[in-house]
Formats: sequence, C-alpha cells, structure tokens
Amino acid sequence: MASSVVKPNPFTRDLKWSGTEKMIAKRAFDLALQREFDAVIRNTKKMASKIEKNTDLWKLESYLTRSRRKIDRQFDWRYSVLPEVFAGLIRKGLLREEDLQGLGDDKLKYIRLYL
Amino acid sequence: MASSVVKPNPFTRDLKWSGTEKMIAKRAFDLALQREFDAVIRNTKKMASKIEKNTDLWKLESYLTRSRRKIDRQFDWRYSVLPEVFAGLIRKGLLREEDLQGLGDDKLKYIRLYL
Repeated sequence: MASSVVKPNPFTRDLKWSGTEKMIAKRAFDLALQREFDAVIRNTKKMASKIEKNTDLWKLESYLTRSRRKIDRQFDWRYSVLPEVFAGLIRKGLLREEDLQGLGDDKLKYIRLYL
Repeated sequence: MASSVVKPNPFTRDLKWSGTEKMIAKRAFDLALQREFDAVIRNTKKMASKIEKNTDLWKLESYLTRSRRKIDRQFDWRYSVLPEVFAGLIRKGLLREEDLQGLGDDKLKYIRLYL
C-alpha cells in the first residue's frame, strides 16, 4: 500500500516483533484487508445494480476512488506503526482483539492505548 | 460538458444555424449522449456483477474515469464545432445520418467531410 498518515512514534518504533508475532500480525492484517475489500465489493455491486441515471455512474466512480484512497491510507504494513493501524482497524470493526491473540503485552498495551 | 479537443475551423465557425436546425441538432446530440450513457451503464452493471477479486474494483473505477473523460471530450456542444462532433458520433455508431435530417446542406456537407 502506498501512502500513509501514521507517523511512527518512538515507543512503537522500538518494539521487537518475534517471528510468531509477525505471522500473527500479518494474518490479522490480511484478514482485516479482506473484510474491507469484501465490504467495498458488496457496496459496489449494490450501487451498480441500482444505477438508473447518468449521474449515478459518477457517484459510483467517486465511491471507488474514495475507497481505494482510504484503503491505501489505512492499511500501512510497517511494524513501527502497526499498533496504531491495528487500533484503527478494531475501532472500525474490521478486527477484534481476539484476532490479535498471541501478540506480546508490549504490543497489546499500545494497541489499547490507541483505541 | 467541460473540456474539448475540437478546435473550430473558420468554415464551420461561420455557419448560420436556424431555430429549427438548432432544435434538430440538440435532439440528435442528446440522443447520442443518452445512447453513450446507456452503453456505459450497461457495461458498468456487467463489470460490477462479475467482480470477484480486489483488483476488479480498480478496473471498474478506471473504466468509469475513462468513460467520463471520453464523454466530456466527445460531447462538445458548440455550434462552431458541431459538424465535426456529429461526424465523430456517426463514426462511433452513436448517430445515423437520418438522425440529422432537416439540417441544411451547408452543415451536412461539413459533417460528411469529417466522416
């Protein structure tokens, strides 16, 4: 994913991720991304099926552009910002804390801090 | 419609359009525009119904953006460029010469010239 709004802070930047934690994080990240994609696909199909007027076309175009940018911004795969990213995904209902089970308390502490 | 690629040439720029001709031209223009919109709506619904992968979303977004720009470029409602615009619409199958019945020979001559 391209751009990002999250700046690493000195605390989360210095966290050490074990191999297992990296795997758990990646699985949760991909799960949330797929959930977000599934929602956008569902909305797109629904909007398209309801198109009647010419202007409905550009509403769909604008929805797709906004969704693409939001996904680019939101899904920032860098360990240094991952606690904040995960907190955002939990807030948006794309992840539950259970999906992150297995991460060390040092990471979970920051995730909860950002919630 | 916003931008245009067609530059008025000195010959079509000086054509005089009667009230009836303006009406005929407007009706043909709107007819072609609606045909183009109908085609884009049809394609959009078809593409949306076939979306399976995430990348299919951005293909649809890109198709909509290209269609919007094409329509903006192609449908240029200025009498000075209308003969060339009509010729283009005939070439693309969005109008037939019969749709322009009632326009004076001075206009039809230029339309045929651009075909």
